[in-house]
Amino acid sequence: MTTILDRDTFGAFTRHTHAALPPSGTGSLTGLTFGAKDLYDIAGAHTGFGSPDWLGSHGPADVTAVAVQRLMDAGAEMVGRTHTDEMAWSLLGENAHYGTPVNVNAPGRVPGGSSSGSAAAVAGGLVDFALGSDTGGSVRLPASFCGVLGMRPSHGRVSLAGACALAPSFDTAGWFAREADVLERVGRVLLADDSPSRPVGRVLLAEDAFAWAGDAVTAALAEAVARVESLFGAAERVALAPQGLAGWIDDFRVLQSAEAWEAHGDWVTRVKPQFGPGVKERFAFAATLEPALVTKARAHRMTSAAHVHSLLGGDAVIVLPTTPGIAPMRGLPQDTLNAFRGQCIAMLAAAGMAGCPQITLPMGRIDGCPLGLSVIGAPGNDTQLLALAGALA
Amino acid sequence: MTTILDRDTFGAFTRHTHAALPPSGTGSLTGLTFGAKDLYDIAGAHTGFGSPDWLGSHGPADVTAVAVQRLMDAGAEMVGRTHTDEMAWSLLGENAHYGTPVNVNAPGRVPGGSSSGSAAAVAGGLVDFALGSDTGGSVRLPASFCGVLGMRPSHGRVSLAGACALAPSFDTAGWFAREADVLERVGRVLLADDSPSRPVGRVLLAEDAFAWAGDAVTAALAEAVARVESLFGAAERVALAPQGLAGWIDDFRVLQSAEAWEAHGDWVTRVKPQFGPGVKERFAFAATLEPALVTKARAHRMTSAAHVHSLLGGDAVIVLPTTPGIAPMRGLPQDTLNAFRGQCIAMLAAAGMAGCPQITLPMGRIDGCPLGLSVIGAPGNDTQLLALAGALA
Repeated sequence: MTTILDRDTFGAFTRHTHAALPPSGTGSLTGLTFGAKDLYDIAGAHTGFGSPDWLGSHGPADVTAVAVQRLMDAGAEMVGRTHTDEMAWSLLGENAHYGTPVNVNAPGRVPGGSSSGSAAAVAGGLVDFALGSDTGGSVRLPASFCGVLGMRPSHGRVSLAGACALAPSFDTAGWFAREADVLERVGRVLLADDSPSRPVGRVLLAEDAFAWAGDAVTAALAEAVARVESLFGAAERVALAPQGLAGWIDDFRVLQSAEAWEAHGDWVTRVKPQFGPGVKERFAFAATLEPALVTKARAHRMTSAAHVHSLLGGDAVIVLPTTPGIAPMRGLPQDTLNAFRGQCIAMLAAAGMAGCPQITLPMGRIDGCPLGLSVIGAPGNDTQLLALAGALA
Repeated sequence: MTTILDRDTFGAFTRHTHAALPPSGTGSLTGLTFGAKDLYDIAGAHTGFGSPDWLGSHGPADVTAVAVQRLMDAGAEMVGRTHTDEMAWSLLGENAHYGTPVNVNAPGRVPGGSSSGSAAAVAGGLVDFALGSDTGGSVRLPASFCGVLGMRPSHGRVSLAGACALAPSFDTAGWFAREADVLERVGRVLLADDSPSRPVGRVLLAEDAFAWAGDAVTAALAEAVARVESLFGAAERVALAPQGLAGWIDDFRVLQSAEAWEAHGDWVTRVKPQFGPGVKERFAFAATLEPALVTKARAHRMTSAAHVHSLLGGDAVIVLPTTPGIAPMRGLPQDTLNAFRGQCIAMLAAAGMAGCPQITLPMGRIDGCPLGLSVIGAPGNDTQLLALAGALA
């Protein structure tokens, strides 16, 4: 019997935790295949979470994660589990233990992470869609780098029961597809259905995010922005972060670290895992975080969220570049990557700070490599964004 | 040597965990005395948290809670620890193990909780101010019932390091005083100082909250509302919860329970504490909570928060009654209290859902008993509210 692993020339799927499951029902996803990031539990199997020490210190799961189960109940077939960055705590897609999935649309470049395998598998046409997770950008960024659609839902809107946590107040279950129609069909299955979206009201353009991303990115997305305006009205220019996007780098880092330590500190202290570069330093920082920094960052988060919500006002959408550029080359030094990661976080933080849904659409190109245009909606307006993607397709 | 316990005719201070500490510095609070809710750690002493089993299963604290330390560093003297409802998980002020502090301003009636002793001590003139905590109303409600000022700060704005958690995404450190000047001076010490408030922009009146509270409350606060309008401009009528305030009762209950179980589930399972009525049922509910309910409630929270933030828009304030009535009589049956508690939660939830600061001012009376008028501000605008209270005083 052949499996997805026989066809996986991109290194997108895990071998050490391979699992595949047939549909458990028929429905709107019948006939579609998907991969699930290796941090969603599958009953009877071990979850890898991108860490050999995690795998070695945890027994098999009792129950399949709710999101995975819903997809199979709706008729989709899970063909395998996709690679994740270690503990989902990176944005690049280079896992020190398990390697780097191939970004078929940007040769020689990273796929982005932490949902690296899910993005690579969808980009490579191995599956119709893939389930990832997005804490600080782990769906949106790899979707931008790999040239596919990616959706981060409103915080709390899609169940994370049976998924490994990173920073629960930011964690979301997100997904990837090549076609807007598939992205929307998956959304209708995953999203709780009691929160009707409003139609797009005003279009806002995050001037500070475009400035942060720079001229090349702004030029590469100009046509995409014009297309959004032609369908939904001329954009009003706004600032996502009147105090400066740079402030979000530290705020996000502190909050994510505090929550990651709360979630995994006991395990880290007990097991003393051999973390790869980057993750190791991040956990070391988390272990020694000053409570006063966390208090301050939490307060900043609330004012940031209130500002973003007050811009959105219930039905507006905010347009911005997903990432400050195309995917970097594979194998760059850690310092270079860390600096780039900070630049990315500043642009990706708004949705996480404010619990907003964000969709990224592969509408730009630089040097032949993909670049995403993002649209942020008010919390709860997930299907508004999915419909917008359909209208643009 | 006499202590506060010799003068405490209101049963506001704890005897079983009594601790008193002199000022550790001189500053803006020199000459003022305060009590601290018995869920803030004091180095070398045992924290009671309103539960005999908690007390019996925890060693002495290593470090004094940050908020308490800041107050003493600024010159205030901590004269004792004030009673709290069991695990801070009630709103009435009746602790099955330690009794009910006396509400000097509403004879025969409860003081409200969970910061029952702090409110009672300030109302009774035993201290100049008191430190409490507010998750779902535990400062605002007893302040309203006892006829004192109460402040719930923006979420994350005041450190809770060294304080027992109930539901961390809602928990705040709040405080009580009889005078607006003292409330503000304490605020300037406790609040992180890098978030300047904006002056009051528009005044909004939460029509649905007044309707929920009913005609008697609306009439009792009419003069207070007129006074706010005379100073800050005519109020525009808005709805705090366009889907209905009632929905917040369940959403808040589910989220609080999920977080309380995450914080204390292991301890409850291990120690099997003998909880009093109310708390016992709430922990039993928390232990068996469906993840799907939590996911849905989290999504509702985000849309609720976004709506409140979009009303506030950065500088507006929302005026509403603090509670749906004056304090109920002591010793009512649990069913009656639970129903009343739900009515309270619906009105108190907005600030918690949206991380907003809220101040309550003793500006109303029904049957000779106190009733508070509340003002909610945008996250970060804590000193805006403190200044507003000063202007009204």
